[in-house]
Amino acid sequence: MTTQINSARLWNDIHESGKIGATEKGGLCRLALSDEDRRVREWFVEACRAEGCEVRFDEVGNLFARRPGRRSDLHPIAIGSHLDSQPTGGKFDGILGVLAGLEAVRTLNEHGIETEHPIEIIDWTNEEGARFAPAMQGSGVFAGALEKETVLSCRDREGLVFGEELDRIGFRGEEICGDHPLDSYFELHIEQGPILENDKKVIGVVVGVQGMRWYDLTLEGSASHAGTTPMKLRRDASVAAAEIITAVNRLAEEIGEGALATTGVIDAYPNSRNVVPSRVFMTVDLRHTEVEVLDRMEERLKEIVSTMGSQHQVSEKLDRLWDSPPVKFDAECVGVVRESAKQSGHPLREITSGAGHDAVYVSRVAPTAMIFIPCKDGISHNEIESASREHVGAGTSVLLEAIRLRDRRWG
Amino acid sequence: MTTQINSARLWNDIHESGKIGATEKGGLCRLALSDEDRRVREWFVEACRAEGCEVRFDEVGNLFARRPGRRSDLHPIAIGSHLDSQPTGGKFDGILGVLAGLEAVRTLNEHGIETEHPIEIIDWTNEEGARFAPAMQGSGVFAGALEKETVLSCRDREGLVFGEELDRIGFRGEEICGDHPLDSYFELHIEQGPILENDKKVIGVVVGVQGMRWYDLTLEGSASHAGTTPMKLRRDASVAAAEIITAVNRLAEEIGEGALATTGVIDAYPNSRNVVPSRVFMTVDLRHTEVEVLDRMEERLKEIVSTMGSQHQVSEKLDRLWDSPPVKFDAECVGVVRESAKQSGHPLREITSGAGHDAVYVSRVAPTAMIFIPCKDGISHNEIESASREHVGAGTSVLLEAIRLRDRRWG
Repeated sequence: MTTQINSARLWNDIHESGKIGATEKGGLCRLALSDEDRRVREWFVEACRAEGCEVRFDEVGNLFARRPGRRSDLHPIAIGSHLDSQPTGGKFDGILGVLAGLEAVRTLNEHGIETEHPIEIIDWTNEEGARFAPAMQGSGVFAGALEKETVLSCRDREGLVFGEELDRIGFRGEEICGDHPLDSYFELHIEQGPILENDKKVIGVVVGVQGMRWYDLTLEGSASHAGTTPMKLRRDASVAAAEIITAVNRLAEEIGEGALATTGVIDAYPNSRNVVPSRVFMTVDLRHTEVEVLDRMEERLKEIVSTMGSQHQVSEKLDRLWDSPPVKFDAECVGVVRESAKQSGHPLREITSGAGHDAVYVSRVAPTAMIFIPCKDGISHNEIESASREHVGAGTSVLLEAIRLRDRRWG
Repeated sequence: MTTQINSARLWNDIHESGKIGATEKGGLCRLALSDEDRRVREWFVEACRAEGCEVRFDEVGNLFARRPGRRSDLHPIAIGSHLDSQPTGGKFDGILGVLAGLEAVRTLNEHGIETEHPIEIIDWTNEEGARFAPAMQGSGVFAGALEKETVLSCRDREGLVFGEELDRIGFRGEEICGDHPLDSYFELHIEQGPILENDKKVIGVVVGVQGMRWYDLTLEGSASHAGTTPMKLRRDASVAAAEIITAVNRLAEEIGEGALATTGVIDAYPNSRNVVPSRVFMTVDLRHTEVEVLDRMEERLKEIVSTMGSQHQVSEKLDRLWDSPPVKFDAECVGVVRESAKQSGHPLREITSGAGHDAVYVSRVAPTAMIFIPCKDGISHNEIESASREHVGAGTSVLLEAIRLRDRRWG
């Protein structure tokens, strides 16, 4: 039988801790290494210690709260996410994953349940990347994907240094970042998209994170008078851009549900009503779970750009500026999440994360899985971000049962 | 036999007067009612008086230089254009049409040729509209299309008033604007487009000016995460915009050579790489010589916008903010231009003006025709605007012969 978590207590934790950095519109402004970050960390450390956890933090400020297991020779099963937010963020993104860990520990304590493995709750430093870039710095250094020195010396827009701010808020630890083996890692998160809600599912069994490639495209034609230049003599950068946007959108639709293609930025020059545009700068964002499909999409993108370029006598410059390969989560960790979700009786589906999470990096060094719950209208990174108490409770129950399954089987 | 104009003298006039307001890159900055406009007007008045012309100007500063005809009961045959320029304009746009009139008068004088009608050279005030908006104010008031008081009281960006600037440069006349009947009006102009050059023609017999309609279009979808929003759940304003741009471009191509469609302005919001755009503002510029075709294009534009809007679940707001109907020049005036051009032996073609000119307004009150000559690469409103001495001479000869044909037949 599934051990019941206390969803009222968890809901209270979310709203109690949510007073730290609260915004007027009901969201959070809790930038990494700010005073608000310090205060929520202090709140969290106190809550964990009250549950008998030993709290440590490493040299980039990642925070580990450990509930001992029966066997001290086993590495901990970890539950984590982040307590920092976007400048106008919501109360759930990241926060839920950490506080669900706290609620899991509280439930275990309450029911006097011992585990074989130690259980750890982790708060990763600066997941959002809103103050210090890039995002996911704490988990990135932990996994060896980012350089510790680079992260410690990076600056925010006011010139303040990451390492100094970490000292200032009192969360620079002595533990070497990454020198901290985990048995496994589980992260509960709001979906930040509309799929679960739209599909009327409560639990998303996250099988991986899609790959992502970012491109800059500049199309260079020739500015000419809208009233005196015949259609066939034009070198119209906006029409070439439009054909590319249309074709790239169609390409994603043809490849199917998993494939995503987006043009978020369009800048036309000289951007004057009666001048045929000489130049368009635009971006393309391609996403898919399979490298092979991303390769195929990129190939088609190149073909489309080249075809439309020559068709409209417009020169093209296409640059790929970022390539984040797809992640597949550990089959056994995903397996226990699936099993736990089935047992819970909540409607569930497999899902691939469209956005990046700390779990992406952690999966490089430990068996990892994620659980998603719906968020209202798929909206996140917004003060109106919202999730229901029922879904928050359901996700946390599934999380707790998943780590218990993991604990029993890999003891 | 055609009377030969002196193309070296005309070329010299263009370059001599072109010192007034000359820019470093070889163009002109001679804004309406500026000191440069005053100086070029003074230069021009002196040159006309030296040829025995009587010079008058009306209450908005339009300048008329009259060479008497044999019959004082006949209204003058007028040759004109404008001496003002864009802030980074070229040496030919407008200037050519006025100085060709001066050269025509010089040639008539030199050869002792009398005409039945008086011949007038006209410099219309503020054709460009670069300093005071809208464009074509002098000819607009002359033709009753614009209100005199509105024009006299309009201000430039520094708050200076048209009427006061006109006084300041000393060119406010007493003649009531428009109280000045013309037998006919002929305007020689560079094409400001690539058709003649591309078609290897020297003379364009301008049969009219196309109609023009301007639209604002706002597409409103929904912003969403590029990584978490499936293609079929998107309300992507940029894809809707792209489909519309593509379809409108195709529409103009299908209708044929005369039809023009341009999207000059594209603004996407929030214009962020990994956000599906919620909104696009764009413009559409439709041009054609026939009202019926413009009506058809507009009908199709509405259909396209509505189809693409509902296809992409994006709301549309399409506003027509300007409708300038097509102009057909006077058949008999166009006839004498065609006849003169044929006699000249230069390669010629009929052409429709894509841009607006003083002739558009003047055609409302007097039989009117225009002559085009090629400009290099179709470029105008640019300091690198260029026309060859040979073409300038050819156009002026055709102009002179056309007014002589007009003079002989309508005497």
